[in-house]
Amino acid sequence: MGDYVNVALDAMGGDNAPKEIIKGAIEAINENNKVKVYLTGKGDVIKTELEGYTYPEEQLVIINAEEIIENAEPPVMAIRKKKDSSLVKALNLVKDGTCDAYVSAGSTGATLVGGQVIVGRIKGVERPPLAPVIPTENGCALLVDCGANVDARPSHLVQFAKMGSIYMENVMNVKSPKVAIVNIGAEEDKGNALVKETFPLLKNCPDINFIGSIEARDIPSGMADVIVCEAFVGNVILKMYEGVGATLIKKVKAGMMTTLRSKIGALLVKPALKQTLKAFDLEQYGGAPMLGLNGLVVKTHGSSTSIEIKNSILQCITFKEQRINEKIREKITVQD
Amino acid sequence: MGDYVNVALDAMGGDNAPKEIIKGAIEAINENNKVKVYLTGKGDVIKTELEGYTYPEEQLVIINAEEIIENAEPPVMAIRKKKDSSLVKALNLVKDGTCDAYVSAGSTGATLVGGQVIVGRIKGVERPPLAPVIPTENGCALLVDCGANVDARPSHLVQFAKMGSIYMENVMNVKSPKVAIVNIGAEEDKGNALVKETFPLLKNCPDINFIGSIEARDIPSGMADVIVCEAFVGNVILKMYEGVGATLIKKVKAGMMTTLRSKIGALLVKPALKQTLKAFDLEQYGGAPMLGLNGLVVKTHGSSTSIEIKNSILQCITFKEQRINEKIREKITVQD
Repeated sequence: MGDYVNVALDAMGGDNAPKEIIKGAIEAINENNKVKVYLTGKGDVIKTELEGYTYPEEQLVIINAEEIIENAEPPVMAIRKKKDSSLVKALNLVKDGTCDAYVSAGSTGATLVGGQVIVGRIKGVERPPLAPVIPTENGCALLVDCGANVDARPSHLVQFAKMGSIYMENVMNVKSPKVAIVNIGAEEDKGNALVKETFPLLKNCPDINFIGSIEARDIPSGMADVIVCEAFVGNVILKMYEGVGATLIKKVKAGMMTTLRSKIGALLVKPALKQTLKAFDLEQYGGAPMLGLNGLVVKTHGSSTSIEIKNSILQCITFKEQRINEKIREKITVQD
Repeated sequence: MGDYVNVALDAMGGDNAPKEIIKGAIEAINENNKVKVYLTGKGDVIKTELEGYTYPEEQLVIINAEEIIENAEPPVMAIRKKKDSSLVKALNLVKDGTCDAYVSAGSTGATLVGGQVIVGRIKGVERPPLAPVIPTENGCALLVDCGANVDARPSHLVQFAKMGSIYMENVMNVKSPKVAIVNIGAEEDKGNALVKETFPLLKNCPDINFIGSIEARDIPSGMADVIVCEAFVGNVILKMYEGVGATLIKKVKAGMMTTLRSKIGALLVKPALKQTLKAFDLEQYGGAPMLGLNGLVVKTHGSSTSIEIKNSILQCITFKEQRINEKIREKITVQD
């Protein structure tokens, strides 16, 4: 079987590494025989962790790496100095063609820098954005960019829109995805300098289904499928999802506990509620792909458990099978 | 009684004008004998609407204005041309000293432009921000700026922090309010160009209790009392509050209706839940003040009902009694 989708997985990255990372790898290869996982990290630690699991051994490779890049380390320096780190070694597996994709719950900064510096951009792509899938009322949307590049230019946002459309159409199966730019009003003349300059470029872009501006309040309701914004704004949107969600759920729980009557009610609604709210959980979709690289780089939450790691590994299969990077190469031309 | 707090109220502005606006005015003067409301708008419409209400007549004045500024109108042009509009006439009452404050649920753009052009800035204030009070887990916070000025400069943000601190300390009674700047990470070297330039200025500002960066996820939990950001980001934060809140509440309701068991539970938890969620309602705090003007300008939601109008009128009393503008004049010096 030379036809595996080969995924490099940083076994040492994330709050729950290596335990949950390795568990996620095992779950992925037990569930799917098309994927092969390259675990990078301290060999003895990984081997100890693997004891007790049963899995198809031909789908798992251990690549020893003695160093670990911590979250607090300055990314550029860390990438340069720690050549024997689990993160750098995993990214090098993508660079040299051994692997198709890289998955990590480790340092976001080092993953983003490493993605650009080690894996490298597709020719013509100016800035590879980080594009998490976020839940909406009736499905999901892609938020692009969300942390890879601050102080973006209009041409970057146009590329984000193109790459995001390709992803939503081919990976998430949304036909002719609706693209919108985050703005502070619906009218074309509203917005800051970046949005005003970008709006006409998106409007005249033949490759996307541009529906205009979107106010942040309409993002959770699912008005658009590809939400284009610069990284600072994207990061604020993503974090507000988490923050407002967590606080509201806490309020709902506290509200249910205020009276005896409500406590009894809470016992009755709990199972149904849990089910519904699961569909609005940010982690269900796996990690966020970094688009426009010569290979796939997926950043999962620092707090990822095995489920998110498994889902992130499995989404690499779709990414490869749907030939996302080939499609990006077709649409992004060097003069963009 | 020459000692009234005089409030100019645009009777024709907002989705529910004039009915709810006038109802709010009546409720305010019936509740508090320190406030006098100047209703601007079509005299005959206002008079018809007032029929059936009983109220202290010495606390209500009708100022006739034949024109209305619509939401869709370009603000600068509308302010200039419609001299006989309810909005312009109300703002002129503040300008000429008849009124201390102005309240409107009408066009945000026209209110913001009119505030600057007609009422005018306090000497030294570079940009008067719109600063809504937002609910948090254990109280509230001030979000400043939230829509008045896009593409702000570092010096503007420092003034926002100072004015916001004065407001939270004196109007909301928060002792030594914690000021934070919205950022995409907690470290000082994170962020876009604006944040990086502003951070050291805030750190060295003696008039505020600066606690550093805040990630958007920590805003709803109440980590800071004054949230400083430029208007585009502030607008996104405010709208995400509304959007995520609305979608989640809808999900919770839907979840409760999925099984017979959960439906019965829903009946039991409903009253307690309603009470708890009320404390997380954006509208409970009245409108958003525009800080740094020669007078108080308060913008309420376009969809305001009488309760928000009433609360907005009453908050003008505290604003005047606490001498907020005098305190801003002391802290904002022209060289700022």
